[in-house]
Amino acid sequence: MSKRILVITGNGKGKTTSAIGLIIRSLGHKKKVSLFKFFKSQPSGEDKILKNLGVKIFKFKKAFFFKPSKIPKDLKIECQRLWREVEKESENKNLVILDEINLALSANIIKKEVFKKFLNTTKSNIVCTGRNAPLWLQKIADTVSEIKEKKHIYIKGIKAQEGIEF
Amino acid sequence: MSKRILVITGNGKGKTTSAIGLIIRSLGHKKKVSLFKFFKSQPSGEDKILKNLGVKIFKFKKAFFFKPSKIPKDLKIECQRLWREVEKESENKNLVILDEINLALSANIIKKEVFKKFLNTTKSNIVCTGRNAPLWLQKIADTVSEIKEKKHIYIKGIKAQEGIEF
Repeated sequence: MSKRILVITGNGKGKTTSAIGLIIRSLGHKKKVSLFKFFKSQPSGEDKILKNLGVKIFKFKKAFFFKPSKIPKDLKIECQRLWREVEKESENKNLVILDEINLALSANIIKKEVFKKFLNTTKSNIVCTGRNAPLWLQKIADTVSEIKEKKHIYIKGIKAQEGIEF
Repeated sequence: MSKRILVITGNGKGKTTSAIGLIIRSLGHKKKVSLFKFFKSQPSGEDKILKNLGVKIFKFKKAFFFKPSKIPKDLKIECQRLWREVEKESENKNLVILDEINLALSANIIKKEVFKKFLNTTKSNIVCTGRNAPLWLQKIADTVSEIKEKKHIYIKGIKAQEGIEF
């Protein structure tokens, strides 16, 4: 089986949970998995369970709040540090989850050429999550799922349109 | 915290895995979870891990292949059997996953009135997955995520349109 590149993007809820589901499915087949969490440092409910199941988790050492138009220098440094972990620790894994990396790619903190080279050389299945997956990544990917938040349509009272909304 | 109703629909990959991710997240907070798999009977990679983590799993006793226009009687009977399990076994759970139930609802195998009554009376958080979530369910739900398969656009060679596709 050749490696696959999956992209999960869009503004809806479920991108990271979908990646976690893929992890559990892979573990069920006794595969090795690594999870890299970009822009996240806080512990989340699933971390302990995933660790107990043998998943290696790498994340930011602190959280950042920022606008894509103004990225703090220490965020860039932290992002590069985690990226070096990806390059080092993703070998010999069947599945590598790069959670929220799409944001780092669209903001050009991780360069397109660097990431493309990684995708070309890795033997792992790669899952990239986060909003605003760059178009060049979507073109390379084998599967692109876009999760859309539909509910606001009804909250705003706009009538759903047959063939468009349902 | 009041109960929430989540709907995960659309033609893209990631609906069931997203629900599994929610399960893991809930388990991380020591919540009780039940998983009901409509239309599925075969073991999947995640089942054993979820069971080991304490998740109660209920599913079809055999798989069915059918068209929505012609639903076999024994499929309807099996669907009703599993539905009775939902009514019986979903009490005292924090999270109840109804995997692929959207299909049973859109095909009217489980009646709208029956399901609405269940949603009104249950104290659990409910997640409904599957294509073709009925509009009435989307209106009741607190969150509706639609997972779209985007990749085919690029396979067909149609140029992605700025503001529409990315």
